[in-house]
Amino acid sequence: MRPPLTKDTTLCISLAARPSNIGTRFHNFLYDRLGLDFLYKAFTTTDIAAAIGGVRALGIRGASVSMPFKADVLALVDRVEPSAQVIGAVNTIVNDDGRLTASNTDYLAVAQLIAAHGLSPDRSVLIAGSGGMAAAVGAAFRDSGFRDGTVVARNTDAGPALADRLGYRWRHHLGGASASIIVNVTPIGMAGGPEERDLAFPPELIAAADTVFDVVAFPSETPLIAAARAAGTPVITGAEVIAGQAAEQFERYTGVRPDPALIAEAAAYSRA
Amino acid sequence: MRPPLTKDTTLCISLAARPSNIGTRFHNFLYDRLGLDFLYKAFTTTDIAAAIGGVRALGIRGASVSMPFKADVLALVDRVEPSAQVIGAVNTIVNDDGRLTASNTDYLAVAQLIAAHGLSPDRSVLIAGSGGMAAAVGAAFRDSGFRDGTVVARNTDAGPALADRLGYRWRHHLGGASASIIVNVTPIGMAGGPEERDLAFPPELIAAADTVFDVVAFPSETPLIAAARAAGTPVITGAEVIAGQAAEQFERYTGVRPDPALIAEAAAYSRA
Repeated sequence: MRPPLTKDTTLCISLAARPSNIGTRFHNFLYDRLGLDFLYKAFTTTDIAAAIGGVRALGIRGASVSMPFKADVLALVDRVEPSAQVIGAVNTIVNDDGRLTASNTDYLAVAQLIAAHGLSPDRSVLIAGSGGMAAAVGAAFRDSGFRDGTVVARNTDAGPALADRLGYRWRHHLGGASASIIVNVTPIGMAGGPEERDLAFPPELIAAADTVFDVVAFPSETPLIAAARAAGTPVITGAEVIAGQAAEQFERYTGVRPDPALIAEAAAYSRA
Repeated sequence: MRPPLTKDTTLCISLAARPSNIGTRFHNFLYDRLGLDFLYKAFTTTDIAAAIGGVRALGIRGASVSMPFKADVLALVDRVEPSAQVIGAVNTIVNDDGRLTASNTDYLAVAQLIAAHGLSPDRSVLIAGSGGMAAAVGAAFRDSGFRDGTVVARNTDAGPALADRLGYRWRHHLGGASASIIVNVTPIGMAGGPEERDLAFPPELIAAADTVFDVVAFPSETPLIAAARAAGTPVITGAEVIAGQAAEQFERYTGVRPDPALIAEAAAYSRA
Protein backbone atom coordinates (compact mmCIF):
# COMPACT_ATOMS: atom_id res chain seq x y z
CA MET A 1 0.00 0.00 0.00
CA ARG A 2 1.20 3.51 -0.69
CA PRO A 3 2.25 5.49 2.40
CA PRO A 4 -0.14 8.14 3.77
CA LEU A 5 -0.14 11.37 1.82
CA THR A 6 2.32 13.93 3.22
CA LYS A 7 4.04 17.13 2.14
CA ASP A 8 6.81 14.94 0.70
CA THR A 9 4.53 12.85 -1.52
CA THR A 10 5.59 13.24 -5.15
CA LEU A 11 2.90 14.39 -7.58
CA CYS A 12 2.68 13.36 -11.24
CA ILE A 13 -0.03 14.70 -13.51
CA SER A 14 -1.45 14.53 -17.00
CA LEU A 15 -2.50 17.42 -19.20
CA ALA A 16 -5.17 16.96 -21.84
CA ALA A 17 -8.09 18.87 -23.29
CA ARG A 18 -10.36 15.95 -22.39
CA PRO A 19 -8.69 13.86 -19.69
CA SER A 20 -9.67 10.24 -19.17
CA ASN A 21 -9.33 8.29 -15.95
CA ILE A 22 -6.93 5.70 -17.42
CA GLY A 23 -3.65 7.28 -16.35
CA THR A 24 -4.92 8.21 -12.90
CA ARG A 25 -6.05 4.61 -12.32
CA PHE A 26 -2.95 3.00 -13.87
CA HIS A 27 -0.33 4.96 -11.96
CA ASN A 28 -2.12 5.09 -8.58
CA PHE A 29 -2.78 1.33 -8.80
CA LEU A 30 0.97 0.72 -9.18
CA TYR A 31 1.95 3.25 -6.47
CA ASP A 32 -0.38 1.39 -4.16
CA ARG A 33 0.89 -2.07 -5.07
CA LEU A 34 4.54 -1.04 -4.96
CA GLY A 35 4.23 1.13 -1.83
CA LEU A 36 5.60 4.22 -3.59
CA ASP A 37 5.03 7.67 -2.05
CA PHE A 38 3.63 9.08 -5.30
CA LEU A 39 0.28 10.43 -6.37
CA TYR A 40 -1.09 10.85 -9.92
CA LYS A 41 -3.96 12.99 -11.13
CA ALA A 42 -5.28 14.07 -14.52
CA PHE A 43 -5.76 17.78 -15.20
CA THR A 44 -7.09 19.85 -18.02
CA THR A 45 -5.99 23.38 -18.88
CA THR A 46 -6.61 26.18 -21.30
CA ASP A 47 -3.15 27.66 -20.73
CA ILE A 48 -0.47 25.07 -21.42
CA ALA A 49 2.43 27.51 -20.90
CA ALA A 50 1.22 28.44 -17.41
CA ALA A 51 0.48 24.79 -16.65
CA ILE A 52 4.06 23.79 -17.54
CA GLY A 53 5.27 26.80 -15.54
CA GLY A 54 3.27 25.37 -12.65
CA VAL A 55 4.89 21.93 -13.12
CA ARG A 56 8.25 23.65 -12.76
CA ALA A 57 7.32 25.96 -9.87
CA LEU A 58 5.52 23.28 -7.85
CA GLY A 59 8.12 20.60 -8.43
CA ILE A 60 5.60 18.24 -10.06
CA ARG A 61 7.74 15.24 -11.00
CA GLY A 62 6.13 14.16 -14.25
CA ALA A 63 3.52 15.32 -16.72
CA SER A 64 1.90 13.15 -19.35
CA VAL A 65 0.84 15.28 -22.30
CA SER A 66 -2.08 14.53 -24.60
CA MET A 67 -3.95 16.27 -27.38
CA PRO A 68 -3.83 19.14 -28.20
CA PHE A 69 -0.62 20.02 -26.33
CA LYS A 70 1.84 17.47 -27.76
CA ALA A 71 3.60 19.91 -30.09
CA ASP A 72 3.13 23.08 -28.02
CA VAL A 73 5.18 21.80 -25.11
CA LEU A 74 8.31 21.34 -27.27
CA ALA A 75 9.06 25.04 -26.76
CA LEU A 76 8.38 24.91 -23.01
CA VAL A 77 10.94 22.31 -21.91
CA ASP A 78 14.69 22.37 -21.44
CA ARG A 79 15.60 19.23 -23.36
CA VAL A 80 13.86 17.20 -26.05
CA GLU A 81 14.89 13.55 -26.36
CA PRO A 82 15.22 12.01 -29.85
CA SER A 83 11.99 10.04 -29.30
CA ALA A 84 10.04 13.31 -29.27
CA GLN A 85 12.34 15.18 -31.64
CA VAL A 86 11.88 12.76 -34.55
CA ILE A 87 8.10 13.07 -34.36
CA GLY A 88 7.79 16.66 -33.26
CA ALA A 89 5.42 15.51 -30.53
CA VAL A 90 5.83 15.03 -26.78
CA ASN A 91 3.75 12.81 -24.51
CA THR A 92 5.99 12.71 -21.44
CA ILE A 93 7.79 15.39 -19.41
CA VAL A 94 10.12 14.53 -16.57
CA ASN A 95 11.11 17.24 -14.07
CA ASP A 96 14.56 16.81 -12.53
CA ASP A 97 14.85 19.62 -9.98
CA GLY A 98 13.33 22.17 -12.34
CA ARG A 99 14.96 20.85 -15.52
CA LEU A 100 12.29 19.51 -17.87
CA THR A 101 13.03 16.69 -20.32
CA ALA A 102 10.49 15.77 -23.00
CA SER A 103 10.15 12.38 -24.62
CA ASN A 104 7.63 10.33 -26.56
CA THR A 105 6.86 7.01 -24.94
CA ASP A 106 4.38 6.08 -27.70
CA TYR A 107 7.34 5.92 -30.06
CA LEU A 108 9.40 4.02 -27.51
CA ALA A 109 6.56 1.57 -26.78
CA VAL A 110 6.02 0.80 -30.48
CA ALA A 111 9.76 0.29 -30.99
CA GLN A 112 9.78 -2.09 -28.00
CA LEU A 113 6.78 -3.99 -29.37
CA ILE A 114 8.48 -4.38 -32.76
CA ALA A 115 11.43 -5.97 -30.97
CA ALA A 116 9.35 -8.00 -28.51
CA HIS A 117 7.24 -9.52 -31.29
CA GLY A 118 10.38 -10.30 -33.30
CA LEU A 119 9.34 -8.36 -36.39
CA SER A 120 12.19 -8.53 -38.88
CA PRO A 121 13.11 -5.26 -40.64
CA ASP A 122 13.32 -6.96 -44.02
CA ARG A 123 9.54 -7.25 -43.98
CA SER A 124 7.28 -4.70 -45.65
CA VAL A 125 5.06 -2.48 -43.51
CA LEU A 126 1.90 -0.57 -44.33
CA ILE A 127 0.73 2.17 -42.00
CA ALA A 128 -2.79 3.58 -42.32
CA GLY A 129 -3.05 7.09 -40.90
CA SER A 130 -1.06 10.33 -40.90
CA GLY A 131 -1.73 11.94 -37.51
CA GLY A 132 0.59 12.29 -34.52
CA MET A 133 0.33 8.65 -33.50
CA ALA A 134 0.95 7.52 -37.10
CA ALA A 135 4.10 9.64 -37.07
CA ALA A 136 5.24 7.89 -33.88
CA VAL A 137 4.47 4.44 -35.31
CA GLY A 138 6.17 5.24 -38.63
CA ALA A 139 9.28 6.61 -36.96
CA ALA A 140 9.50 3.57 -34.70
CA PHE A 141 9.41 1.23 -37.73
CA ARG A 142 11.86 3.30 -39.71
CA ASP A 143 14.25 3.61 -36.76
CA SER A 144 13.94 -0.16 -36.22
CA GLY A 145 15.38 -0.58 -39.72
CA PHE A 146 12.25 -1.06 -41.82
CA ARG A 147 12.98 0.35 -45.29
CA ASP A 148 10.05 -1.02 -47.29
CA GLY A 149 7.17 1.09 -46.01
CA THR A 150 3.93 2.59 -47.22
CA VAL A 151 1.80 5.29 -45.62
CA VAL A 152 -1.85 5.15 -46.62
CA ALA A 153 -3.74 8.36 -45.85
CA ARG A 154 -6.55 10.31 -47.44
CA ASN A 155 -5.05 13.55 -46.17
CA THR A 156 -3.13 14.79 -49.19
CA ASP A 157 -0.94 17.12 -47.12
CA ALA A 158 -0.10 15.12 -44.00
CA GLY A 159 0.01 11.77 -45.84
CA PRO A 160 2.75 12.53 -48.38
CA ALA A 161 4.60 14.68 -45.81
CA LEU A 162 4.80 11.82 -43.32
CA ALA A 163 5.79 9.32 -46.04
CA ASP A 164 8.45 11.71 -47.20
CA ARG A 165 9.93 12.15 -43.71
CA LEU A 166 10.05 8.39 -43.28
CA GLY A 167 11.39 7.65 -46.76
CA TYR A 168 8.25 5.57 -47.39
CA ARG A 169 5.73 5.55 -50.24
CA TRP A 170 2.44 7.35 -49.92
CA ARG A 171 -0.85 5.96 -51.19
CA HIS A 172 -4.15 7.76 -51.05
CA HIS A 173 -6.18 4.58 -50.48
CA LEU A 174 -5.82 0.91 -49.79
CA GLY A 175 -6.82 -0.35 -53.25
CA GLY A 176 -4.08 -2.68 -54.53
CA ALA A 177 -1.89 -2.22 -51.44
CA SER A 178 -0.37 -5.17 -49.62
CA ALA A 179 2.29 -5.71 -46.96
CA SER A 180 3.66 -8.29 -44.52
CA ILE A 181 2.86 -6.04 -41.55
CA ILE A 182 -0.28 -3.92 -41.64
CA VAL A 183 -0.83 -1.26 -38.99
CA ASN A 184 -4.04 0.66 -38.32
CA VAL A 185 -3.43 4.12 -36.87
CA THR A 186 -6.82 5.55 -37.85
CA PRO A 187 -9.89 5.83 -35.56
CA ILE A 188 -11.58 2.94 -37.39
CA GLY A 189 -12.84 0.46 -34.80
CA MET A 190 -12.67 2.94 -31.92
CA ALA A 191 -15.51 2.72 -29.41
CA GLY A 192 -17.98 5.57 -29.65
CA GLY A 193 -16.66 6.68 -33.05
CA PRO A 194 -18.68 6.67 -36.27
CA GLU A 195 -16.61 3.75 -37.61
CA GLU A 196 -16.82 1.65 -34.44
CA ARG A 197 -17.95 -1.49 -36.28
CA ASP A 198 -15.85 -0.98 -39.40
CA LEU A 199 -12.96 -3.15 -40.50
CA ALA A 200 -9.84 -0.98 -40.94
CA PHE A 201 -8.40 -3.18 -43.74
CA PRO A 202 -10.19 -5.26 -46.39
CA PRO A 203 -10.27 -9.04 -45.78
CA GLU A 204 -7.82 -9.79 -48.60
CA LEU A 205 -5.19 -7.48 -47.04
CA ILE A 206 -5.67 -9.16 -43.66
CA ALA A 207 -5.43 -12.59 -45.30
CA ALA A 208 -2.17 -11.61 -47.03
CA ALA A 209 -0.55 -10.14 -43.89
CA ASP A 210 1.78 -12.02 -41.54
CA THR A 211 1.20 -9.58 -38.65
CA VAL A 212 -1.79 -7.32 -37.94
CA PHE A 213 -1.14 -4.37 -35.64
CA ASP A 214 -4.00 -2.14 -34.45
CA VAL A 215 -3.16 0.91 -32.36
CA VAL A 216 -6.81 1.41 -31.34
CA ALA A 217 -6.99 0.64 -27.63
CA PHE A 218 -10.66 1.20 -26.79
CA PRO A 219 -11.64 -1.50 -27.32
CA SER A 220 -8.43 -3.35 -28.04
CA GLU A 221 -10.50 -6.17 -29.56
CA THR A 222 -11.44 -4.16 -32.65
CA PRO A 223 -13.14 -5.71 -35.69
CA LEU A 224 -9.65 -5.76 -37.28
CA ILE A 225 -8.04 -7.66 -34.40
CA ALA A 226 -11.02 -10.03 -34.26
CA ALA A 227 -10.70 -10.76 -38.00
CA ALA A 228 -6.94 -11.35 -37.71
CA ARG A 229 -7.40 -13.69 -34.76
CA ALA A 230 -10.08 -15.58 -36.71
CA ALA A 231 -7.61 -15.96 -39.58
CA GLY A 232 -4.90 -17.20 -37.20
CA THR A 233 -2.70 -14.19 -37.97
CA PRO A 234 -0.42 -12.90 -35.17
CA VAL A 235 -1.66 -9.59 -33.72
CA ILE A 236 -0.32 -6.63 -31.77
CA THR A 237 -3.05 -4.69 -29.99
CA GLY A 238 -3.57 -1.12 -28.84
CA ALA A 239 -3.74 -2.42 -25.28
CA GLU A 240 -0.09 -3.46 -25.62
CA VAL A 241 0.84 0.01 -26.89
CA ILE A 242 -0.98 1.74 -24.03
CA ALA A 243 0.52 -0.55 -21.39
CA GLY A 244 4.00 -0.26 -22.90
CA GLN A 245 3.98 3.51 -23.07
CA ALA A 246 2.52 3.81 -19.59
CA ALA A 247 5.17 1.44 -18.18
CA GLU A 248 7.85 3.54 -19.83
CA GLN A 249 6.34 6.72 -18.29
CA PHE A 250 6.06 5.01 -14.94
CA GLU A 251 9.73 4.10 -14.95
CA ARG A 252 10.78 7.59 -16.00
CA TYR A 253 8.71 9.19 -13.21
CA THR A 254 9.53 6.77 -10.38
CA GLY A 255 12.76 5.01 -11.37
CA VAL A 256 10.93 1.71 -10.87
CA ARG A 257 10.10 -0.75 -13.69
CA PRO A 258 7.27 -3.03 -12.57
CA ASP A 259 7.37 -6.60 -13.88
CA PRO A 260 5.21 -7.31 -16.98
CA ALA A 261 2.55 -9.23 -15.02
CA LEU A 262 1.99 -6.29 -12.70
CA ILE A 263 1.91 -3.87 -15.64
CA ALA A 264 -0.75 -6.06 -17.27
CA GLU A 265 -2.75 -6.07 -14.04
CA ALA A 266 -2.51 -2.28 -13.76
CA ALA A 267 -3.47 -1.88 -17.41
CA ALA A 268 -6.52 -4.10 -16.96
CA TYR A 269 -7.52 -2.22 -13.79
CA SER A 270 -7.06 1.15 -15.50
CA ARG A 271 -9.47 0.14 -18.27
CA ALA A 272 -12.07 -1.47 -16.02
CA MET B 1 -14.18 7.62 3.36
CA ARG B 2 -13.19 9.81 0.46
CA PRO B 3 -14.00 8.41 -2.98
CA PRO B 4 -11.19 6.85 -5.05
CA LEU B 5 -8.94 9.40 -6.73
CA THR B 6 -10.07 10.24 -10.28
CA LYS B 7 -9.50 12.91 -12.91
CA ASP B 8 -12.38 14.83 -11.30
CA THR B 9 -10.90 14.89 -7.79
CA THR B 10 -10.40 18.49 -6.68
CA LEU B 11 -6.89 19.46 -5.59
CA CYS B 12 -6.06 22.02 -2.90
CA ILE B 13 -2.49 22.90 -2.03
CA SER B 14 -0.33 24.98 0.26
CA LEU B 15 2.66 27.08 -0.71
CA ALA B 16 5.43 27.76 1.78
CA ALA B 17 9.19 28.02 1.85
CA ARG B 18 9.27 25.29 4.49
CA PRO B 19 6.02 23.34 4.38
CA SER B 20 4.83 21.39 7.39
CA ASN B 21 2.56 18.35 7.31
CA ILE B 22 -0.18 20.01 9.38
CA GLY B 23 -2.38 21.24 6.54
CA THR B 24 -1.99 18.05 4.51
CA ARG B 25 -3.07 15.98 7.51
CA PHE B 26 -5.87 18.33 8.61
CA HIS B 27 -7.60 18.66 5.24
CA ASN B 28 -7.19 15.06 4.08
CA PHE B 29 -8.48 13.81 7.44
CA LEU B 30 -11.66 15.82 6.94
CA TYR B 31 -12.06 14.85 3.26
CA ASP B 32 -11.85 11.27 4.39
CA ARG B 33 -14.31 11.63 7.25
CA LEU B 34 -16.76 13.68 5.20
CA GLY B 35 -16.42 11.62 2.01
CA LEU B 36 -15.42 14.64 -0.09
CA ASP B 37 -13.73 14.08 -3.46
CA PHE B 38 -10.87 16.42 -2.61
CA LEU B 39 -7.14 16.01 -2.11
CA TYR B 40 -4.71 18.33 -0.30
CA LYS B 41 -0.95 18.48 -0.54
CA ALA B 42 1.74 20.91 0.63
CA PHE B 43 4.19 22.29 -1.92
CA THR B 44 7.20 24.53 -1.82
CA THR B 45 8.36 26.80 -4.63
CA THR B 46 11.03 29.28 -5.54
CA ASP B 47 8.80 30.96 -8.13
CA ILE B 48 5.57 32.13 -6.52
CA ALA B 49 4.29 33.87 -9.67
CA ALA B 50 4.62 30.69 -11.75
CA ALA B 51 3.14 28.65 -8.91
CA ILE B 52 0.04 30.88 -8.79
CA GLY B 53 -0.06 30.73 -12.60
CA GLY B 54 -0.10 26.95 -12.21
CA VAL B 55 -2.95 27.16 -9.67
CA ARG B 56 -4.93 29.04 -12.31
CA ALA B 57 -3.92 26.90 -15.30
CA LEU B 58 -4.47 23.57 -13.55
CA GLY B 59 -7.72 24.58 -11.88
CA ILE B 60 -6.35 23.95 -8.38
CA ARG B 61 -9.28 24.93 -6.14
CA GLY B 62 -7.48 26.44 -3.18
CA ALA B 63 -4.01 27.49 -2.10
CA SER B 64 -2.96 28.18 1.48
CA VAL B 65 -0.10 30.66 1.49
CA SER B 66 2.61 30.85 4.14
CA MET B 67 5.88 32.68 4.65
CA PRO B 68 7.48 34.23 2.69
CA PHE B 69 4.73 34.59 0.06
CA LYS B 70 1.93 36.24 2.04
CA ALA B 71 2.48 39.74 0.64
CA ASP B 72 3.79 38.74 -2.82
CA VAL B 73 0.56 37.03 -3.83
CA LEU B 74 -1.48 40.22 -3.38
CA ALA B 75 -0.40 41.26 -6.88
CA LEU B 76 -1.12 37.82 -8.38
CA VAL B 77 -4.83 37.46 -7.60
CA ASP B 78 -7.98 38.99 -9.06
CA ARG B 79 -9.67 40.09 -5.86
CA VAL B 80 -8.42 40.81 -2.33
CA GLU B 81 -10.96 40.52 0.48
CA PRO B 82 -10.90 43.08 3.33
CA SER B 83 -9.45 40.44 5.70
CA ALA B 84 -6.26 40.38 3.62
CA GLN B 85 -6.41 44.01 2.52
CA VAL B 86 -6.33 45.46 6.05
CA ILE B 87 -3.20 43.49 6.91
CA GLY B 88 -1.50 43.47 3.52
CA ALA B 89 -1.03 39.72 3.88
CA VAL B 90 -2.81 36.73 2.32
CA ASN B 91 -2.97 33.22 3.68
CA THR B 92 -5.81 31.80 1.56
CA ILE B 93 -6.55 31.84 -2.17
CA VAL B 94 -9.77 30.45 -3.60
CA ASN B 95 -10.01 29.71 -7.32
CA ASP B 96 -13.48 30.06 -8.82
CA ASP B 97 -13.12 28.96 -12.44
CA GLY B 98 -9.87 30.86 -12.89
CA ARG B 99 -10.84 33.88 -10.78
CA LEU B 100 -8.61 34.05 -7.71
CA THR B 101 -9.83 35.60 -4.44
CA ALA B 102 -7.40 36.21 -1.58
CA SER B 103 -8.30 36.39 2.08
CA ASN B 104 -6.68 36.10 5.50
CA THR B 105 -8.24 33.43 7.66
CA ASP B 106 -5.83 34.15 10.54
CA TYR B 107 -7.53 37.51 10.89
CA LEU B 108 -10.96 35.92 10.56
CA ALA B 109 -10.12 33.20 13.09
CA VAL B 110 -8.91 35.71 15.69
CA ALA B 111 -12.01 37.84 15.17
CA GLN B 112 -14.16 34.73 15.64
CA LEU B 113 -12.27 33.78 18.82
CA ILE B 114 -12.75 37.28 20.25
CA ALA B 115 -16.50 36.85 19.75
CA ALA B 116 -16.62 33.20 20.85
CA HIS B 117 -14.79 33.96 24.11
CA GLY B 118 -17.08 36.93 24.73
CA LEU B 119 -14.29 39.51 24.99
CA SER B 120 -15.88 42.92 25.44
CA PRO B 121 -14.43 45.77 23.33
CA ASP B 122 -14.38 48.13 26.31
CA ARG B 123 -11.50 46.11 27.74
CA SER B 124 -7.86 47.08 27.17
CA VAL B 125 -5.65 44.86 25.03
CA LEU B 126 -1.88 44.52 24.89
CA ILE B 127 -0.33 42.81 21.88
CA ALA B 128 3.32 41.72 21.99
CA GLY B 129 4.84 41.47 18.52
CA SER B 130 4.87 43.42 15.26
CA GLY B 131 5.15 40.79 12.48
CA GLY B 132 2.51 39.63 10.01
CA MET B 133 0.55 37.61 12.56
CA ALA B 134 0.64 40.51 15.04
CA ALA B 135 -0.83 42.69 12.31
CA ALA B 136 -3.65 40.15 11.82
CA VAL B 137 -4.31 39.92 15.56
CA GLY B 138 -4.22 43.69 15.99
CA ALA B 139 -6.57 44.32 13.08
CA ALA B 140 -8.98 41.69 14.39
CA PHE B 141 -9.11 43.43 17.81
CA ARG B 142 -9.42 46.89 16.31
CA ASP B 143 -12.14 45.77 13.87
CA SER B 144 -13.94 44.08 16.79
CA GLY B 145 -14.21 47.52 18.37
CA PHE B 146 -11.26 47.52 20.78
CA ARG B 147 -10.05 51.12 21.10
CA ASP B 148 -7.74 50.89 24.10
CA GLY B 149 -4.76 49.01 22.69
CA THR B 150 -1.02 48.80 23.08
CA VAL B 151 1.54 47.23 20.77
CA VAL B 152 4.73 46.16 22.52
CA ALA B 153 7.61 45.53 20.13
CA ARG B 154 11.35 46.00 20.21
CA ASN B 155 11.36 46.66 16.45
CA THR B 156 11.40 50.46 16.32
CA ASP B 157 10.14 50.54 12.72
CA ALA B 158 7.47 47.83 12.58
CA GLY B 159 6.28 48.39 16.15
CA PRO B 160 5.27 52.07 15.91
CA ALA B 161 4.05 51.53 12.32
CA LEU B 162 1.66 48.77 13.38
CA ALA B 163 0.47 50.73 16.42
CA ASP B 164 -0.10 53.73 14.19
CA ARG B 165 -2.17 51.76 11.67
CA LEU B 166 -4.29 50.37 14.48
CA GLY B 167 -4.63 53.65 16.36
CA TYR B 168 -2.97 51.99 19.37
CA ARG B 169 -0.04 53.04 21.56
CA TRP B 170 3.42 51.65 20.96
CA ARG B 171 5.78 50.61 23.76
CA HIS B 172 9.30 49.38 23.28
CA HIS B 173 9.15 46.98 26.24
CA LEU B 174 6.80 45.51 28.78
CA GLY B 175 8.06 47.48 31.81
CA GLY B 176 5.10 49.24 33.44
CA ALA B 177 2.59 47.91 30.89
CA SER B 178 -0.68 46.34 31.93
CA ALA B 179 -3.95 45.33 30.22
CA SER B 180 -7.08 43.31 30.70
CA ILE B 181 -6.29 41.12 27.67
CA ILE B 182 -2.65 40.26 26.99
CA VAL B 183 -1.72 38.58 23.70
CA ASN B 184 1.60 37.00 22.84
CA VAL B 185 2.39 37.13 19.11
CA THR B 186 6.16 36.66 19.48
CA PRO B 187 8.03 33.33 19.11
CA ILE B 188 8.54 33.13 22.89
CA GLY B 189 7.50 29.67 24.06
CA MET B 190 7.68 28.13 20.57
CA ALA B 191 9.09 24.59 20.43
CA GLY B 192 12.59 24.41 18.98
CA GLY B 193 13.15 28.14 19.34
CA PRO B 194 15.78 29.76 21.57
CA GLU B 195 13.06 31.04 23.94
CA GLU B 196 11.16 27.76 24.16
CA ARG B 197 11.08 27.75 27.98
CA ASP B 198 10.65 31.48 28.44
CA LEU B 199 7.57 33.18 29.81
CA ALA B 200 6.29 35.74 27.27
CA PHE B 201 4.91 38.08 29.96
CA PRO B 202 6.15 38.75 33.51
CA PRO B 203 4.14 37.12 36.34
CA GLU B 204 2.67 40.43 37.54
CA LEU B 205 1.23 41.14 34.05
CA ILE B 206 -0.29 37.65 33.93
CA ALA B 207 -1.69 38.14 37.44
CA ALA B 208 -3.27 41.44 36.44
CA ALA B 209 -4.83 40.13 33.22
CA ASP B 210 -8.40 38.85 32.87
CA THR B 211 -7.62 36.88 29.67
CA VAL B 212 -4.32 35.47 28.42
CA PHE B 213 -4.10 34.80 24.70
CA ASP B 214 -1.06 33.04 23.20
CA VAL B 215 -0.86 32.66 19.42
CA VAL B 216 2.02 30.15 19.68
CA ALA B 217 0.61 26.81 18.53
CA PHE B 218 3.58 24.45 18.83
CA PRO B 219 3.18 23.62 21.62
CA SER B 220 -0.11 25.26 22.46
CA GLU B 221 0.61 24.63 26.15
CA THR B 222 3.35 27.27 26.32
CA PRO B 223 4.90 28.44 29.60
CA LEU B 224 2.58 31.46 29.31
CA ILE B 225 -0.57 29.36 28.93
CA ALA B 226 0.59 27.08 31.77
CA ALA B 227 1.15 30.07 34.07
CA ALA B 228 -2.25 31.54 33.21
CA ARG B 229 -4.00 28.22 33.82
CA ALA B 230 -2.16 27.93 37.16
CA ALA B 231 -3.45 31.38 38.08
CA GLY B 232 -6.98 30.44 37.07
CA THR B 233 -7.02 33.06 34.31
CA PRO B 234 -9.09 32.29 31.17
CA VAL B 235 -6.89 31.45 28.16
CA ILE B 236 -7.11 31.40 24.37
CA THR B 237 -4.51 29.14 22.78
CA GLY B 238 -2.67 29.01 19.48
CA ALA B 239 -4.31 25.65 18.84
CA GLU B 240 -7.66 27.45 18.72
CA VAL B 241 -6.28 29.95 16.21
CA ILE B 242 -4.84 27.23 13.98
CA ALA B 243 -8.02 25.16 14.08
CA GLY B 244 -10.20 28.21 13.48
CA GLN B 245 -8.25 29.45 10.51
CA ALA B 246 -8.04 25.96 9.01
CA ALA B 247 -11.81 25.45 9.43
CA GLU B 248 -12.37 28.75 7.67
CA GLN B 249 -10.08 27.68 4.81
CA PHE B 250 -11.77 24.31 4.65
CA GLU B 251 -15.18 25.91 4.24
CA ARG B 252 -13.94 28.30 1.59
CA TYR B 253 -12.37 25.46 -0.43
CA THR B 254 -15.13 22.86 -0.09
CA GLY B 255 -18.29 24.78 0.79
CA VAL B 256 -18.65 22.50 3.83
CA ARG B 257 -18.31 23.67 7.46
CA PRO B 258 -17.55 20.66 9.67
CA ASP B 259 -18.99 20.74 13.19
CA PRO B 260 -16.64 21.96 15.94
CA ALA B 261 -16.08 18.48 17.40
CA LEU B 262 -14.88 17.15 14.05
CA ILE B 263 -12.66 20.22 13.54
CA ALA B 264 -11.11 19.56 16.94
CA GLU B 265 -10.54 15.93 16.02
CA ALA B 266 -8.90 16.91 12.71
CA ALA B 267 -6.77 19.53 14.47
CA ALA B 268 -5.58 16.98 17.03
CA TYR B 269 -4.84 14.45 14.27
CA SER B 270 -2.97 17.05 12.21
CA ARG B 271 -0.66 17.80 15.13
CA ALA B 272 -0.06 14.18 16.17
